Amino acid sequence: MTASQELDRAVRGELDSLVDLYQDLHAHPELSFAEHRTAATVARHAASYGYDVTSGVGRTGVVAVLDHGEGPTVLLRADFDALPVTERTGLPYASRTAGVMHACGHDLHVTCLLGALKLLADARERWRGRIVAVFQPAEEVGEGARAMIDDGLFDRFGTPDVVLGQHVAPLAVGMVACHAGPAFAATDSLKVVMYGKGAHGSRPETSVDPVVMAAATVMRLQTVVSREVPAGETAVLTVGSLRAGTVDNIIPDEAELRLSIRTYDEDIRTRMRAAVERIVRGEALVAGAEREPEFTALDAFPVLVNDEAAVARTMGAVAGVLGDGQVIDPGPVTGSEDVGLFGTAAKAPVCYWLFGGCDAEVYAAAAAGGTLDRDVPSNHSPLFAPLAAPAVTTGVTAMTAAALEWLGRPGGTAESI
Amino acid sequence: MTASQELDRAVRGELDSLVDLYQDLHAHPELSFAEHRTAATVARHAASYGYDVTSGVGRTGVVAVLDHGEGPTVLLRADFDALPVTERTGLPYASRTAGVMHACGHDLHVTCLLGALKLLADARERWRGRIVAVFQPAEEVGEGARAMIDDGLFDRFGTPDVVLGQHVAPLAVGMVACHAGPAFAATDSLKVVMYGKGAHGSRPETSVDPVVMAAATVMRLQTVVSREVPAGETAVLTVGSLRAGTVDNIIPDEAELRLSIRTYDEDIRTRMRAAVERIVRGEALVAGAEREPEFTALDAFPVLVNDEAAVARTMGAVAGVLGDGQVIDPGPVTGSEDVGLFGTAAKAPVCYWLFGGCDAEVYAAAAAGGTLDRDVPSNHSPLFAPLAAPAVTTGVTAMTAAALEWLGRPGGTAESI
Amino acid sequence: MTASQELDRAVRGELDSLVDLYQDLHAHPELSFAEHRTAATVARHAASYGYDVTSGVGRTGVVAVLDHGEGPTVLLRADFDALPVTERTGLPYASRTAGVMHACGHDLHVTCLLGALKLLADARERWRGRIVAVFQPAEEVGEGARAMIDDGLFDRFGTPDVVLGQHVAPLAVGMVACHAGPAFAATDSLKVVMYGKGAHGSRPETSVDPVVMAAATVMRLQTVVSREVPAGETAVLTVGSLRAGTVDNIIPDEAELRLSIRTYDEDIRTRMRAAVERIVRGEALVAGAEREPEFTALDAFPVLVNDEAAVARTMGAVAGVLGDGQVIDPGPVTGSEDVGLFGTAAKAPVCYWLFGGCDAEVYAAAAAGGTLDRDVPSNHSPLFAPLAAPAVTTGVTAMTAAALEWLGRPGGTAESI
Amino acid sequence: MTASQELDRAVRGELDSLVDLYQDLHAHPELSFAEHRTAATVARHAASYGYDVTSGVGRTGVVAVLDHGEGPTVLLRADFDALPVTERTGLPYASRTAGVMHACGHDLHVTCLLGALKLLADARERWRGRIVAVFQPAEEVGEGARAMIDDGLFDRFGTPDVVLGQHVAPLAVGMVACHAGPAFAATDSLKVVMYGKGAHGSRPETSVDPVVMAAATVMRLQTVVSREVPAGETAVLTVGSLRAGTVDNIIPDEAELRLSIRTYDEDIRTRMRAAVERIVRGEALVAGAEREPEFTALDAFPVLVNDEAAVARTMGAVAGVLGDGQVIDPGPVTGSEDVGLFGTAAKAPVCYWLFGGCDAEVYAAAAAGGTLDRDVPSNHSPLFAPLAAPAVTTGVTAMTAAALEWLGRPGGTAESI
Repeated sequence: MTASQELDRAVRGELDSLVDLYQDLHAHPELSFAEHRTAATVARHAASYGYDVTSGVGRTGVVAVLDHGEGPTVLLRADFDALPVTERTGLPYASRTAGVMHACGHDLHVTCLLGALKLLADARERWRGRIVAVFQPAEEVGEGARAMIDDGLFDRFGTPDVVLGQHVAPLAVGMVACHAGPAFAATDSLKVVMYGKGAHGSRPETSVDPVVMAAATVMRLQTVVSREVPAGETAVLTVGSLRAGTVDNIIPDEAELRLSIRTYDEDIRTRMRAAVERIVRGEALVAGAEREPEFTALDAFPVLVNDEAAVARTMGAVAGVLGDGQVIDPGPVTGSEDVGLFGTAAKAPVCYWLFGGCDAEVYAAAAAGGTLDRDVPSNHSPLFAPLAAPAVTTGVTAMTAAALEWLGRPGGTAESI
Repeated sequence: MTASQELDRAVRGELDSLVDLYQDLHAHPELSFAEHRTAATVARHAASYGYDVTSGVGRTGVVAVLDHGEGPTVLLRADFDALPVTERTGLPYASRTAGVMHACGHDLHVTCLLGALKLLADARERWRGRIVAVFQPAEEVGEGARAMIDDGLFDRFGTPDVVLGQHVAPLAVGMVACHAGPAFAATDSLKVVMYGKGAHGSRPETSVDPVVMAAATVMRLQTVVSREVPAGETAVLTVGSLRAGTVDNIIPDEAELRLSIRTYDEDIRTRMRAAVERIVRGEALVAGAEREPEFTALDAFPVLVNDEAAVARTMGAVAGVLGDGQVIDPGPVTGSEDVGLFGTAAKAPVCYWLFGGCDAEVYAAAAAGGTLDRDVPSNHSPLFAPLAAPAVTTGVTAMTAAALEWLGRPGGTAESI
Repeated sequence: MTASQELDRAVRGELDSLVDLYQDLHAHPELSFAEHRTAATVARHAASYGYDVTSGVGRTGVVAVLDHGEGPTVLLRADFDALPVTERTGLPYASRTAGVMHACGHDLHVTCLLGALKLLADARERWRGRIVAVFQPAEEVGEGARAMIDDGLFDRFGTPDVVLGQHVAPLAVGMVACHAGPAFAATDSLKVVMYGKGAHGSRPETSVDPVVMAAATVMRLQTVVSREVPAGETAVLTVGSLRAGTVDNIIPDEAELRLSIRTYDEDIRTRMRAAVERIVRGEALVAGAEREPEFTALDAFPVLVNDEAAVARTMGAVAGVLGDGQVIDPGPVTGSEDVGLFGTAAKAPVCYWLFGGCDAEVYAAAAAGGTLDRDVPSNHSPLFAPLAAPAVTTGVTAMTAAALEWLGRPGGTAESI
Repeated sequence: MTASQELDRAVRGELDSLVDLYQDLHAHPELSFAEHRTAATVARHAASYGYDVTSGVGRTGVVAVLDHGEGPTVLLRADFDALPVTERTGLPYASRTAGVMHACGHDLHVTCLLGALKLLADARERWRGRIVAVFQPAEEVGEGARAMIDDGLFDRFGTPDVVLGQHVAPLAVGMVACHAGPAFAATDSLKVVMYGKGAHGSRPETSVDPVVMAAATVMRLQTVVSREVPAGETAVLTVGSLRAGTVDNIIPDEAELRLSIRTYDEDIRTRMRAAVERIVRGEALVAGAEREPEFTALDAFPVLVNDEAAVARTMGAVAGVLGDGQVIDPGPVTGSEDVGLFGTAAKAPVCYWLFGGCDAEVYAAAAAGGTLDRDVPSNHSPLFAPLAAPAVTTGVTAMTAAALEWLGRPGGTAESI
């Protein structure tokens, strides 16, 4: 039996219980730093596999450690918070919490890492070293990795030799995508409050209307990418939220925008932030606002840089079990991730990859039509719905193979499960 | 002692307790059809003056009746609901309920009508007839008058010969303003939901962005008044609320607009409603939305028409006590009122006027600068703050004088308090 | 034969030649201050009726005087410039000058005044006094009346006791409309140049795009009327021209807007001019423009105020010949006219009215549908096409009757033609 | 003396007369297909160097041929039309033709190719083969290359073995930039006419205002790049021209937009064209336009693909004379070029490069500030002004070296001038 076949059989043996676990997590999403039920579930499972579990690391984070002789320390990371999205998938295991949804697939990340931990524990005679499994809170707001590091993660659990992690994506199941070098964008998120002057809805002339002010600002912010960023640069500016007023007949006092700026280049980042501020301040002047807008920094993610050698080594191992054609280079993507902070803080190489959760035929049809992503609900959509069993299989397989690659061998030869 | 002096003395005798009542009502605002504490306060006071009180008319409305011999039936109306506004006046008696405020002065209407009821009861030997005091809920949403009428108001308490009411406004205290003919605008309020397609904030190309769709719609709706309504027509279109999304990094699925259309002319009303629908549907097409926007009718107020003869008679009486120069004609205003429904349903003439709540010097300075309303917080503003004692004095005086004018005389001669 | 019948017969006698004259003028429109052919035509006709003609008054203006004994001096005014509009009526006598059209009907004003001069000359035994017929250039740019006055109009030709004039409008033929008091709006016209920074169309990031800057400005200018002017005020802001760039692949350096502001109230006028400047300057800031926008005042018309007594007297005479139901009060209109300057400078009352040029059935149908002006091409439209013979009849009749009313009578009794 | 030194001396010998030629061309720019004076100048010079000159190829194009024994046929191309830009450089040799300018540097392309032809003719004993110098009209409108090919270019003058050409760019003088593979974007240009309904500026309610319609369209077109194109794709949408109306007080009938779409990917191109059409049609609906917008295709350029081997070989030769550090890879740029059509039609490899015309210190400062192109006027700017002598030196040197590289050697060994 080849390594691939052996791993495949091991995964299949755990699949039913992992899918149950996934559906339970999916039905019980929790927002950033409020992942109490999720943390307890993680701790219970990891402990049952024989890991040494510590909860409350970086507020709600969980660390599970398994030592097995001399060897490298390998950090395996899964994030576990959900999003303020109202699920509309109609799945039997859809979110039971109104307005909260695992729309980014972190439930799958947790499931796959727990599955890998189980397989690695079962096969511990085949490797040497130390597994540090990091279940991270609050990735969506860019604060969880920083919180765990600041809580003494490396002092308390050891400094890793490599940082490995993965994210589900609208790829076909069975596929993995990884880009060496700058791979995920930097993100700067802002809350902007624009101040008008409230009045009765029938007397706009006594108001400074913040609804119109905010609408004009949203329209003008479109020109940052369309006119101010060179076309060859990768950059996104999204106003994800605009909220002003409560009823139809009162002109409110203010409007609140929440926006995110994604870039790969520091100069472009500076330019875009300046453009946003110039436009927002200018639109307040145009409106005749008497009070300056206020800017509050929300999340900030740096660019995630995948180590070139680590990518080559890890993807080699993953391709060994999933098949050569199954590993692709997606180029840089516009999403952001704080997993890179573990690597930076530990001065260790990072390899972070995407794995597929989408039906292969649907994906192939979409990709063939040149309209990939038009028909496959993307992460953060209220319709985001990876295929449970095949996605779990892909993620557990990739993570286990990657971890084994970096752990030491008992007698110096390559091993498989 | 003249009638005016006598009334003035009577008002002064009640002023302290009325100001206390006003401040208590102001501190405890309640939203439309939830005016339970307010209704109880009203009922308690009116009963203590000797009125026959019925609660729960039209859900939360209160009717207080005082019969005193043969004579006309005079309906005196005060509305008593508050608004979803967060008060920012900093007054010691500011709202204690977060997000709710008497920003339209209905607390003052209640206080003044109760004050007038007290004075009229005290002076009952001077008039003959029947006072029907109507404390109406849910004026802000245009449903309260209809609810009380539908609950048998006239069958149960008598059909009035005249309908009288008043509203505080940013006029100088001591002043009253009343326009004969069409005096308050019709209002049609709509909720509009525009449907986009949610996605991760980093991948707008997989979305149909409802934030941009709504912003473009708000900008284009400005052209309804600026381009489609003849300049000589009185018309307002206000988008009072725009809400889309919750966080910076998720493109939401939809955006909700709440807007109101105010008109005096049926043709203009029809044209504006058609223009709003054309623009909203068109903007969804422009955005590439896959789902049609949805329109839900919210409030609808008809034009309020003041009876010419009733205005002349009532304002004559009011000018008799406040002074000739104190009563002005403001022309038609863009506010809306459902008080007219009582007149229409009862086939009785209506006289509805504005009374001043603003500091005379501040008002004079603002009016002289040609910028009235620029410096005086208007109704529905979170800073709306009538001057308590002078405003109560003005409102009680006007309402009492108006009611006496329409009630019968014991021996056929004019009477004063 | 009544006065009306007699006048009617006289008009019919001249009709064919007047319609020929009208069609000739219509085919040869000339822009403001370039009305050389028109002026020569006017001079030739007026001289042939026996008037004393002076050309070149106020550059291209023409004055025709007829003295006939002691009596009042009556100023009759027609404007005679055309517009930079490309005619699209398809009429056999359509403009033969590319890009220039009598789209405002000044050709009809000239024809009707010449017709009235002929009738008045023929009937000179019936009146006493002095007719000063003023054929004014450059009304469309608001400069002609001022130019003629500054050129010594009253010193050279006498100060009038009354100023009479008329304008064709989309009313039914046979109708006249006149409003006493403020009747035509003030207009302030501006040229605005917004400065961007040109670049190759492929590299917007090296530009400050003036096309986007101007577009955003146009959208935001809509809010002046929709949000900043009280709904009861009559005000219009039109951007009539926007020009930027020449080709698709060059981002130009600048954009030019031409706009007009129409108001009746001095405070609103001041507020709107300030709002336009605030918005234009603010939008340049929003765009990151390095150079301030430039504002150049173009035309400026004051409010035209019709004298109340003069309107009553004049319209009484006009109703006498056209029929009582044929004279209406249209209320204040948003058009502008510089004819009022003659009255102001001469300290004489002004009566300026509209006369109908539209098919009565078409007009009635449009008015009945509540959509008047939607189906009848309005002045300044490339499709503007008054009905020649009936419009000439209406205008000659009204002008002749009005002039006769104000001229003296030979023996003190009223006369007719 | 090295090849580089020898070539350098030869260039210096011609420099004065070439700079004179350049300034003369710059002062006399001519629009696409109207390059009569330019063509005559080119023909005169090339003939004087001994080339066999044919004029009128593809309307105004010029072909100059020099045969010298057996060897490869090398096509050297310079484009020679100017742009509708009003020059603002203030140079002594600035354009003498109002509204036309060599703002893209085609005058420099002509000068450098003529300089190279002179040097190659002088050094003809050092090479064998056939030089086909193609002076192409109408590059700016994307029609000149096609016109020359369709006029039998290859049948009449031979099919080339390689196509070489160059374009001046805001690089430092002495530098050359060339990217192998897809190097210049595809462009699709459109004229869009949006139809409103004209009216007098005072009565917008009788109009469908095309100025507002066009402004809203420009704002919404910004969302094509900001929301509908994936951030990693290179795409530009520029509205280079917007023209509507002529005066301030007439609402015009229509507005004309001229826009260009630049892409590298066929799917993105299709998507953007569809988005433009959807937005334009939708905005007409939003405005209530009664007539559909009209779209007219203007220029269309395909992607220009540089042959990988040809780039390596050509740039090797150029680096040999300019210095190794002087040749860089700029990556794909967003400009477009029709030079690729010669290669496609001839089935020959193309190498098309950029050469520097900018002061080295200015360029270095701009590049160091991360704001390159912010301070150096880019092509198509009215301030575009390459440094004459150094730019000519760079361009002549590069073109001569490149041509020599591809021509045959008399005895099989490499030669230099």
